[in-house]
Amino acid sequence: MAVDEITVVCWGLGAMGSGMAKVLLERKGVRIVGAIATRPEKTGRDLGEVLGVGREIGVRVTNNPEEALEAGADVVLHATSSFAREIYPQLDAAMAAGSNVITVAEEMAYLRQSDPELAAEIDQLARKYGVSILGTGINPGFVLDTLIIALTGICADVKRVRARRVNDLSPFGPTVMRTQGVGTTVEEFRDGMAKGTIVGHIGFVQSCGMIADALGWKLDEITQTREPIISSTRRQTPHVDVKPGMVAGCNHTAHAFMNGEEVITLEHPQQVLPGLEGVETGDYIWIEGTPPVNLAIKPEIPGGIGTIGIAVNMIPHVVAAEPGLVTMKDLPVPACMMGDMTRLARAARGDGEGA
Amino acid sequence: MAVDEITVVCWGLGAMGSGMAKVLLERKGVRIVGAIATRPEKTGRDLGEVLGVGREIGVRVTNNPEEALEAGADVVLHATSSFAREIYPQLDAAMAAGSNVITVAEEMAYLRQSDPELAAEIDQLARKYGVSILGTGINPGFVLDTLIIALTGICADVKRVRARRVNDLSPFGPTVMRTQGVGTTVEEFRDGMAKGTIVGHIGFVQSCGMIADALGWKLDEITQTREPIISSTRRQTPHVDVKPGMVAGCNHTAHAFMNGEEVITLEHPQQVLPGLEGVETGDYIWIEGTPPVNLAIKPEIPGGIGTIGIAVNMIPHVVAAEPGLVTMKDLPVPACMMGDMTRLARAARGDGEGA
Repeated sequence: MAVDEITVVCWGLGAMGSGMAKVLLERKGVRIVGAIATRPEKTGRDLGEVLGVGREIGVRVTNNPEEALEAGADVVLHATSSFAREIYPQLDAAMAAGSNVITVAEEMAYLRQSDPELAAEIDQLARKYGVSILGTGINPGFVLDTLIIALTGICADVKRVRARRVNDLSPFGPTVMRTQGVGTTVEEFRDGMAKGTIVGHIGFVQSCGMIADALGWKLDEITQTREPIISSTRRQTPHVDVKPGMVAGCNHTAHAFMNGEEVITLEHPQQVLPGLEGVETGDYIWIEGTPPVNLAIKPEIPGGIGTIGIAVNMIPHVVAAEPGLVTMKDLPVPACMMGDMTRLARAARGDGEGA
Repeated sequence: MAVDEITVVCWGLGAMGSGMAKVLLERKGVRIVGAIATRPEKTGRDLGEVLGVGREIGVRVTNNPEEALEAGADVVLHATSSFAREIYPQLDAAMAAGSNVITVAEEMAYLRQSDPELAAEIDQLARKYGVSILGTGINPGFVLDTLIIALTGICADVKRVRARRVNDLSPFGPTVMRTQGVGTTVEEFRDGMAKGTIVGHIGFVQSCGMIADALGWKLDEITQTREPIISSTRRQTPHVDVKPGMVAGCNHTAHAFMNGEEVITLEHPQQVLPGLEGVETGDYIWIEGTPPVNLAIKPEIPGGIGTIGIAVNMIPHVVAAEPGLVTMKDLPVPACMMGDMTRLARAARGDGEGA
């Protein structure tokens, strides 16, 4: 890597993409050189104006990906959709332009588990273009996979892993309310599940796969259950009014089996205002092994800013990585990279930083 | 890497080294081919007998390092002493034999901070011999550095880090009692500190340095304080009898400053039976940043088995690493490697494992 500054194109300027762009503006050794958005109210304007940071940045937001990608930035920070097959043409275009890619699309966090064919294809493309591509985020990407894996690193053996992420959806808007079934009746919830409009959490298959591969476990099967969280109190947010007996959220659980035994259990009850019924938010990990580990993070690591943080922080590691589809378990531990990111990427490559 | 099985020499068969050897016997794709010990009651006997595992292993424990090293094992697992300059000739011999090295010597966890000259020398030697060398352990090596770094990975910014590891020394023997000052009077404690016989924790400088470098912080200074923990109850273990008013352990704290402000505080009060005075053991991490993180592991990750576990688990990552002196922050996240370690090392090198 011979660059003086890591250049970045931000693809997607929704809540996640805008957040990443704002964090990047505070970091050293990194510069935004392009921004892609689809909403007409964002395109054609200066990025600083779109972000509301009170100054011009000199980057015009475009709805034409080619225009932004042609600079061949070191990294494309990608935040447009959750689904790998949907974003595949975007990832392809970014890689073809010679850019490494960090995407927060949930399915990309460990595509090898959920879609091995597409994973192999993306891996080949990345190698062909000489770039690396990483899927990350807070969950999947950190709390229910990378953090668990890191904790098992101190174990002589592990028999079983269980983790539970309890969050509060009340900061979120109508889309999240709808996809989690908040404010529905139990019948509407069942109906929405059947129709696929209520989806719960996206990422359990990826998290289970990453944990299993890191530990060397061969899974037989991953099953998932989604149950309505029926409120016994009234729970009101600016976007929803859940009356007693209605659905406050979705209790989504994944179970991974090896040789017929459940070895990984991941629980993610997502609801509005769980505190009203005495449920404390938090991230909890229990490792049954030698030694056992019992971890709690209270309150939970917030999903939005956490995803923004980890996507930005992985930039130097992705720039330094060997070409291919990489995962959080393959790269060095994440860190809040507040120093010169270019220097940190060079150090990660072993370019003249010594020990 | 073209080997079919990772070969390992265990250098040091004290509590740590023996524990690592026993864990290795349970792992796949890895084989112990040599064992070095100094105590006459261990040398000349079969390793299985020395470990008490009830079977012959076919490895004769030797007190002659050359004899064990000449096989040129893939990895030397090193556990003989805490101090880098003391073990330097051993590390040199292991690297000269063409072996990668994992050592649990505390000073090696981040030698760049505590002894940059020696770190540069070891790094050059490792590159010359084409091997990698890692210092690790539970602390330094994981709880008060790698785990903290990983947690900052989800932050947009970090202002300050504070962590506290509260453990119970009662499982330990006379050496630990002496070096932590357990069972002394307050005067004896002060005297032992002055003479250097009471040392407290070894590793704070390394942990602070690793955190700062990972985050891109330039530290001005690291200071340390060691205070006696004066017992108000009687605390008895098989090795010590602490009467009220006597010293139950050493409260050792590190403070790291940047631009005159304390940015890292690490506390490690080590004592026998803290529970008798209502002190709960645990590992606690507080990150003051965006977002803040508040983590607790209760009880604390045990030091002995944790060090054994992480040293063994890093084998595939160290085999796969580029030559040089590497650190926990440079390598992929640790994981309890229960699958075929050779295959895991190959995957880490990207040899034919694809995405």
